[in-house]
Amino acid sequence: MIIRLASNYTLSEDSAIATLLNKNGIGFSEVVTQYGHYLVAPLKGDMDIRLIGHLTEVDDVYRVSDAYKLVSRKWKLKNTSIDLGDNIVIGDGSLSIMAGPCSIESEAQIESTVKHLLDRGISIMRGGVYKPRSSPYSFRGLGMEGLKLFYKHCQDNGIKVITEVMMVEQIEEMHDYVDIFQVGARNSQNFNLLDALGKIDKAVMIKRGISGTIEELLQSAEYVFSNGNEKILLCERGIRSYEKAYRNTMDVNAIAVLKDRSHLPVIADPSHGVGVRKYVDKIAMASVMAGADGVILEVHEVPQKAFSDGAQTLSYGQASVLYEKLRQLDQLKSQFATL
Amino acid sequence: MIIRLASNYTLSEDSAIATLLNKNGIGFSEVVTQYGHYLVAPLKGDMDIRLIGHLTEVDDVYRVSDAYKLVSRKWKLKNTSIDLGDNIVIGDGSLSIMAGPCSIESEAQIESTVKHLLDRGISIMRGGVYKPRSSPYSFRGLGMEGLKLFYKHCQDNGIKVITEVMMVEQIEEMHDYVDIFQVGARNSQNFNLLDALGKIDKAVMIKRGISGTIEELLQSAEYVFSNGNEKILLCERGIRSYEKAYRNTMDVNAIAVLKDRSHLPVIADPSHGVGVRKYVDKIAMASVMAGADGVILEVHEVPQKAFSDGAQTLSYGQASVLYEKLRQLDQLKSQFATL
Amino acid sequence: MIIRLASNYTLSEDSAIATLLNKNGIGFSEVVTQYGHYLVAPLKGDMDIRLIGHLTEVDDVYRVSDAYKLVSRKWKLKNTSIDLGDNIVIGDGSLSIMAGPCSIESEAQIESTVKHLLDRGISIMRGGVYKPRSSPYSFRGLGMEGLKLFYKHCQDNGIKVITEVMMVEQIEEMHDYVDIFQVGARNSQNFNLLDALGKIDKAVMIKRGISGTIEELLQSAEYVFSNGNEKILLCERGIRSYEKAYRNTMDVNAIAVLKDRSHLPVIADPSHGVGVRKYVDKIAMASVMAGADGVILEVHEVPQKAFSDGAQTLSYGQASVLYEKLRQLDQLKSQFATL
Amino acid sequence: MIIRLASNYTLSEDSAIATLLNKNGIGFSEVVTQYGHYLVAPLKGDMDIRLIGHLTEVDDVYRVSDAYKLVSRKWKLKNTSIDLGDNIVIGDGSLSIMAGPCSIESEAQIESTVKHLLDRGISIMRGGVYKPRSSPYSFRGLGMEGLKLFYKHCQDNGIKVITEVMMVEQIEEMHDYVDIFQVGARNSQNFNLLDALGKIDKAVMIKRGISGTIEELLQSAEYVFSNGNEKILLCERGIRSYEKAYRNTMDVNAIAVLKDRSHLPVIADPSHGVGVRKYVDKIAMASVMAGADGVILEVHEVPQKAFSDGAQTLSYGQASVLYEKLRQLDQLKSQFATL
Repeated sequence: MIIRLASNYTLSEDSAIATLLNKNGIGFSEVVTQYGHYLVAPLKGDMDIRLIGHLTEVDDVYRVSDAYKLVSRKWKLKNTSIDLGDNIVIGDGSLSIMAGPCSIESEAQIESTVKHLLDRGISIMRGGVYKPRSSPYSFRGLGMEGLKLFYKHCQDNGIKVITEVMMVEQIEEMHDYVDIFQVGARNSQNFNLLDALGKIDKAVMIKRGISGTIEELLQSAEYVFSNGNEKILLCERGIRSYEKAYRNTMDVNAIAVLKDRSHLPVIADPSHGVGVRKYVDKIAMASVMAGADGVILEVHEVPQKAFSDGAQTLSYGQASVLYEKLRQLDQLKSQFATL
Repeated sequence: MIIRLASNYTLSEDSAIATLLNKNGIGFSEVVTQYGHYLVAPLKGDMDIRLIGHLTEVDDVYRVSDAYKLVSRKWKLKNTSIDLGDNIVIGDGSLSIMAGPCSIESEAQIESTVKHLLDRGISIMRGGVYKPRSSPYSFRGLGMEGLKLFYKHCQDNGIKVITEVMMVEQIEEMHDYVDIFQVGARNSQNFNLLDALGKIDKAVMIKRGISGTIEELLQSAEYVFSNGNEKILLCERGIRSYEKAYRNTMDVNAIAVLKDRSHLPVIADPSHGVGVRKYVDKIAMASVMAGADGVILEVHEVPQKAFSDGAQTLSYGQASVLYEKLRQLDQLKSQFATL
Repeated sequence: MIIRLASNYTLSEDSAIATLLNKNGIGFSEVVTQYGHYLVAPLKGDMDIRLIGHLTEVDDVYRVSDAYKLVSRKWKLKNTSIDLGDNIVIGDGSLSIMAGPCSIESEAQIESTVKHLLDRGISIMRGGVYKPRSSPYSFRGLGMEGLKLFYKHCQDNGIKVITEVMMVEQIEEMHDYVDIFQVGARNSQNFNLLDALGKIDKAVMIKRGISGTIEELLQSAEYVFSNGNEKILLCERGIRSYEKAYRNTMDVNAIAVLKDRSHLPVIADPSHGVGVRKYVDKIAMASVMAGADGVILEVHEVPQKAFSDGAQTLSYGQASVLYEKLRQLDQLKSQFATL
Repeated sequence: MIIRLASNYTLSEDSAIATLLNKNGIGFSEVVTQYGHYLVAPLKGDMDIRLIGHLTEVDDVYRVSDAYKLVSRKWKLKNTSIDLGDNIVIGDGSLSIMAGPCSIESEAQIESTVKHLLDRGISIMRGGVYKPRSSPYSFRGLGMEGLKLFYKHCQDNGIKVITEVMMVEQIEEMHDYVDIFQVGARNSQNFNLLDALGKIDKAVMIKRGISGTIEELLQSAEYVFSNGNEKILLCERGIRSYEKAYRNTMDVNAIAVLKDRSHLPVIADPSHGVGVRKYVDKIAMASVMAGADGVILEVHEVPQKAFSDGAQTLSYGQASVLYEKLRQLDQLKSQFATL
């Protein structure tokens, strides 16, 4: 169960709630976030939860039968939205579009991308400066130097930055140059990294593992939330299967399931998800119909020259058509509610 | 390569084309369908295909590098459409909807479903009379008796019938009571069944195998085509994966790939595809955006009482909302061509 | 539950057992095989099974909680062995080896293989005359003519024949030339074929589906048994996975599980299982350690010239070394029982 | 290609080899390990490698077509063995056995396990003090305090310690209390962790990812090697599949492939691999026949009371029988070389 405490309340060993739980043999974890104060505990079958609800320090008590708790929709029915500032909000009912190159390559590339995004009304730019690569001999990104340039140009133009963080030590130095920290598929169960991201007050987008289950993704989000950070985005980016006709099997089913089970916003990554340029637009649109709150796309001025992932990257022209389709689709979708 | 012969031409051992191919050591298969007359042959690198093109009996010659040939879009760029008669056409650019119960259960159930379909303007009804079941002790369908009732009520109301055939011996007795023969996922590589369905002049819908590849599905279609029947529909119905949060992983990526690689119409089966009622509508819409020419849905007056697959079956009310959404989506999609 | 009836007993509607079950609302299936007479029924919680056990026509009653019943080890604790005649028995505790080419290609090939097997003391020969092929343009086997030659040479030399049957219509014509009917992976859930093979008195080896579950394989065996034929072999032949370093993922875990859950003999097919010649010996030995009762191997005088599956086929020399290893391993394994 | 330099050679920008490679436009990575000094470079087709071989600072040059280089058997044909000191060597041709609990739970448990291992002649003990857990609310291990106790008891008894490291920051504090650092399946592509483990002189065992490919595992090993550490063990621990009859699909095929492609020792983890106690012995033996250099097993005095993974853990009695079988099998296997 989740017990929501009065937010200004200081829990101590002899608090009435602690005493009551201890007396009933119920272990619990205290969670303090930027928005709330919770106790997470297993619910013992024979306990009358009204006893808890009556305590003055308790705002509310919720039964949550899922293995994950705080990220479950079982206690929080309304969608969570993430406010990035400057009126850029994810998960408020409209579709968010994030776009940019796989890797940050140069200042000229950043400038070109920022211009493309401004032209098309896109307010979140993606780009990797720390790149997880299968081979140790591959390009591994421009690092902090690249990130600072990336952030500067975006900030100057009112664009928010999403980029991947790969290890705990990077969080501090990256912190001031990032709006959304991305946890990549290979780090989806890097629990120390998730713990650490739970202790900062920045949005975190967690990608599903390469063959991660939906439940594992939600548990990874629970790591972040239970460490104190409620600003979490979930990302479906395709799973590994036996099929060789495309790069990954984008699992649009997972988008529908995640929206059903959790109150957190869900972002679709069709570029990695299907991983073949000519199918990205269809899969992006399919993801929106499956319920995605946003789409993250790889775009590049000259996809053929991209340092990484060129085969799944859209040109500015291709991306521009897709943005338009996505927006029309989003509008239609909002009309469906009246049916 | 595919050599398209003049359709009234009779090939013999001493035809000029046969002589030419034999002289060049090129084996070939002759294919005669309801619409065309073809020779399918491997293309030897050093042969000048203009020599073939010049022969009077040859209409055209096409290079097809795919493993499958006649079903490839490499030689036939335009979409194939399947005319079921009475102005009911699949694959003509508009979205086809097929709906009905998993199993035909009774005459009353048929009547109720037909009424629902008529009310909603749906002109193709699905329903199984031969059911493949994992356990030999499960209900295996009403058989021919059920099919005759099913067909009678549909024919009386201008509705076309799609139903599963499981073995070669059933084809003949079922033939006059079926508009589209469905080959189930478990028979997707039952090559004798595919051979036999290639020898009749009825539409055949082939479901992708339980873990079938896209290429295997196209090769299965090639079996039907190369035996003489061009009226083929491909069906994506979800693949088996490690994820347990739903029944199957509906592979919307495959829809996009199939439309790209083949000229045949593609039908999405979201009911089996995701296999959980509350997600069927989202996955149906996602499938349309991925490029499906049609959707096949399980509906039942009282899903909870269905003999089989109740958990993924929509009620009439739920289905009616979905039909409406699908039609609006289809309309929007056709506007996208102008972008 | 399984009710074992006196074997000479004729069940009728007013038999005491039928009356008792009907009175308790328990549906049942009657199964008559070459060895026994059974009723298979769901066990209702509130029924006292001693009431059944007391009836004179009842030999014994067994609770079987598995979804499959007659093939379960829950009622038959001892291993089933299959007697092929001429003292050739599978599943009697010693290791059975079957070997031969993927496809029967010519009489000379049959003679060469038979000689190799005789030299090495192998008494079961494999070889396909009906070949399931992904492409309709591939070699599909020599058919009945090939089978008759195959059988003649084997019979003359005291060797038993195992070969694949693909459709119901083939069973009758093949019947007298086959000792073990093989059901291929693509037909593992061809329920009509399984039904028909349940009605003959020949051994049947069922391969696990391409992505078949262990439970599905046991249910497919249940089809054969419940139609009247207890002579069933289960075969693990590798499953489809994302890994591309070999052809299939030979699932040796499944061998251990099948031996645990069922009384039927289990055969390992490492040639298809891993599908790469240089790994076949290791995987064959691994399979024996996992509990396999037998191994089926692809061998060819000149693997490079095999009509099909050459890349996974052993030469006579390679196979001979492996036979020797397998026999020594089998001997060691039987000593382990005393630890 | 791999260029092996004289080990005492100091590479500089104007070294003859650097000059030659630069002149030919060949980028390269310098690798200095505890045993060697290498340059790793792509081989350009038109270059005569004898020019390189002639340089005095070059010991040898090897063509390696694999994506991974230093861990490939293409340049190092002999098996690598890892010397842990005190005559405990892994990969020298005899079978290594590692055993112990999933989690270190208490000093009493350590003492009991050490006694069991000493009794059975096992010289490497496993045990987790940092535990990756799906849920943030699960037991996460005793940490450094547990490790120090674990190491002390092992060292006092001549037993080596293998334990999991989860993050870069832990390496330094763990360093003096660990003989083999284990990288878990979830960290198999945590490239920063692999980089850091490449900079120490301790053995590192890398587990295959949850759905990792064989190539990815070898690339992860390449990370460690190319950072300077050649003491690497590869571990097969089961992959994720659709099958639900066991926990993971232990991929014994991968053991055969890894031994073929790499010179590094391969350890089998049947406890996680199949994940069901009653199958562990069969899968352990199967792994040895597939070529494993060692086996790592979960054992516990009372498996039912283990803090984690009890369902796959052997009791001391069960483990003792298995040790004996494995040793006999290993002996038989060494005799096979003469066949």
